[in-house]
Amino acid sequence: MASKPSIPKGTRDFSPVEVSKRNYITAIMRTHFENFGYQPIETPSFENSDTLMGKYGEEGDRLIFKILNSGDYLDKVSTEELLDLNYKKLTTKISEKALRYDLTVPFARYVVQHQNEIEFPFKRYQIQPVWRADRPQKGRFREFYQCDADVVGSTSLWQEVELVQLYDSIFAALGLNGVTIKINNRKILSGIAEVIGASDKLIDFTVALDKLDKIGEDGVKKEMLEKGISEEALVKVQPLFHFTGTIHEKMEKLSALLSSSEEGMKGIAELRFICDNVNKLGLQKAILDLDVTLARGLNYYTGAIFEVSAPEGVAMGSIGGGGRYDDLTGIFGLKNMSGVGISFGLDRIYLVLEELNLFPETVTTATKVMFLNFGESQAFEAMQAIQQLRNQNIKAELYPDAAKVDKQFKHAERRAIPFVVKEITNGMYTLKNIVSGAQTQVDLSELISLIK
Amino acid sequence: MASKPSIPKGTRDFSPVEVSKRNYITAIMRTHFENFGYQPIETPSFENSDTLMGKYGEEGDRLIFKILNSGDYLDKVSTEELLDLNYKKLTTKISEKALRYDLTVPFARYVVQHQNEIEFPFKRYQIQPVWRADRPQKGRFREFYQCDADVVGSTSLWQEVELVQLYDSIFAALGLNGVTIKINNRKILSGIAEVIGASDKLIDFTVALDKLDKIGEDGVKKEMLEKGISEEALVKVQPLFHFTGTIHEKMEKLSALLSSSEEGMKGIAELRFICDNVNKLGLQKAILDLDVTLARGLNYYTGAIFEVSAPEGVAMGSIGGGGRYDDLTGIFGLKNMSGVGISFGLDRIYLVLEELNLFPETVTTATKVMFLNFGESQAFEAMQAIQQLRNQNIKAELYPDAAKVDKQFKHAERRAIPFVVKEITNGMYTLKNIVSGAQTQVDLSELISLIK
Repeated sequence: MASKPSIPKGTRDFSPVEVSKRNYITAIMRTHFENFGYQPIETPSFENSDTLMGKYGEEGDRLIFKILNSGDYLDKVSTEELLDLNYKKLTTKISEKALRYDLTVPFARYVVQHQNEIEFPFKRYQIQPVWRADRPQKGRFREFYQCDADVVGSTSLWQEVELVQLYDSIFAALGLNGVTIKINNRKILSGIAEVIGASDKLIDFTVALDKLDKIGEDGVKKEMLEKGISEEALVKVQPLFHFTGTIHEKMEKLSALLSSSEEGMKGIAELRFICDNVNKLGLQKAILDLDVTLARGLNYYTGAIFEVSAPEGVAMGSIGGGGRYDDLTGIFGLKNMSGVGISFGLDRIYLVLEELNLFPETVTTATKVMFLNFGESQAFEAMQAIQQLRNQNIKAELYPDAAKVDKQFKHAERRAIPFVVKEITNGMYTLKNIVSGAQTQVDLSELISLIK
Repeated sequence: MASKPSIPKGTRDFSPVEVSKRNYITAIMRTHFENFGYQPIETPSFENSDTLMGKYGEEGDRLIFKILNSGDYLDKVSTEELLDLNYKKLTTKISEKALRYDLTVPFARYVVQHQNEIEFPFKRYQIQPVWRADRPQKGRFREFYQCDADVVGSTSLWQEVELVQLYDSIFAALGLNGVTIKINNRKILSGIAEVIGASDKLIDFTVALDKLDKIGEDGVKKEMLEKGISEEALVKVQPLFHFTGTIHEKMEKLSALLSSSEEGMKGIAELRFICDNVNKLGLQKAILDLDVTLARGLNYYTGAIFEVSAPEGVAMGSIGGGGRYDDLTGIFGLKNMSGVGISFGLDRIYLVLEELNLFPETVTTATKVMFLNFGESQAFEAMQAIQQLRNQNIKAELYPDAAKVDKQFKHAERRAIPFVVKEITNGMYTLKNIVSGAQTQVDLSELISLIK
């Protein structure tokens, strides 16, 4: 193989610096997930195809990576089936497994499969890669991590309160001030559609309303009329076009609008419980706001809907989202298991922290001190000292060969190793600070405390 | 879907306890890898097929999981190619990507692809899953983690010294006393074969010698004769059949045996450097031993060969292995890059720690304290306290519903939550220790310090 090797499009190699920064983010997530009582599980990278297929719509089915059966996978395929040239049908014959597409369906599968071992309500988090055969583009990959926290088996709205707090805690710990946690409720959206007599046009209505920022009031109204929503309905929802004010003012406006819809009022009651309690308990850094245009995952959310946007001024889509789904495990035959969960977008959070320069300088796995190598006997003395340093959890190394001093120094510089031990004489170490150029002679215990 | 869902054979779900224990092991590995100057990288789960195919022999090619191309993968396949019914040929037409089979080939690919960004010698570690379409059996999975530390771009034997120390440090930190790090050298094996005039029978010779424990001296000799090794040769290697003593005694015996083989003597010199320095620097808990029958990965190792066996009395195969390979990156066109590395068997180490009861009791992500729920206003007070506890990194939870007290207590017991707050009155908390049954009334700061 003469040509330089490469990796499949949409995938990435992560360098030591990138791994360290990603681990910094996920370590903070893990700590807070666990402080909130969420426990880690892990599921296999591939699932049986019938666990995944049909769960994400037609588009999803297409984007799922399928794994070819091992051995002679043509063995059980008839010539007719082959000549049919129907690749979708053939796939079911030659592939039984598929790569995980998200963490929600495997979680539902896990809950149903292990229902007898699980103590409900079950709070779990999961940080694992998922794969999608999507067209790769800036910020969209074919392999990427999802970071999910969900609780299943409880309809208590305290779960929603807590998930807002969890978002706040994690983003605060990451130093990310001013993220907005947008909240909505599926029942409110249904209520609006009901009130305006367009229950069948819920999605059209929501999609149009969502464009308010971009195309303005007139544009949205035009689109709604085109979709068959009546003039009369538009008059009723007029307040939504100037939907400003505090979260409580917004709730008052909605209450007036939805007073005739039982479901809508139920949505408002849920929203009120969540927002009031979040408000009274207080958030550290995040802003909670009601966004009636928020509708992500409308197909399966049944209650609260969440989405988190990066601080103002950072051009980035949502960095998290989630919601309540009343029938999480129904697809696998276990009824009446309400779930609510949130997800963190690791890649985007990474980009935001990078842009705002929020990674602490200490986020590095780089070696702290390198000992120059002047040949075997001096190297042995160095290794004795290095052993002591490592026992003190100091990242220490010997340059492996007795190369020219210049070359050894350059190695330390290129690797951003801050300290170099130049010489060892009678148990005294000549330590050079590569950054400042300062040089001192110290004994081993001083060496340890200087580097620590 | 009515039947209970399942996962593909050879794969596993990991429960919270299992994830915690696995993370405990890998966290210790990471700390020590980094103390030793190894830095983390991550590579994609799937590689281009031509990166992997042909690198692991015919058997390996068979065991690599192939990913079906997305979309209509039959589009570019002719009817003739289909009717050929040659699944291996067809695979190259309908599959371009394959799941990682180990971490070594992706590492070599990474080094060649990023050679201009890498400062050599490059010490990297990698802890990621790999996939093999092997027949699943006890302790053998189709998805499992590898934990590798390698250095590339240095022929210094200090690397080998350090890797022995690294094994020792990690197993010591895991509390695993008395592991044996077996060492050998490919050049010694070649030297023996040379000395007995059977250079072409190196593998037959080694395979037979390896059975000494099982089939005894006579059995081994019989097998060697059958493989065409001469009576005369057997006389020469007679010392290997009673190859006991200290590592230095063994080296003396080998020196005598191999005195006429330049390569063999080179192997002994390398071995001597490594063992002498390891010995002088000292190991914490592990035993270093010379095992001339050790030949793992004979196909690509060119110098030192390592294998770690669990402490005596634990029936478990090797829990680690590695060695020096002088041409790691040659397969991708980058010559003269010597590498040496070691690997840790996570699954087996897990089983050994479990068997010896070596997981600390603190290895758990379980919640520390649960507050009973008696309805909204009391729950709110609980949430206020919980917020304070979580800020102190105490894993705390509210039972989500105002269920019967008995049910709430049982939930805490089943989840092994050690403390329950039963009541909150005037800022005083009634704390019950579930294990001892003891009960106290404390204020918030006392609550925090009690639980911490």
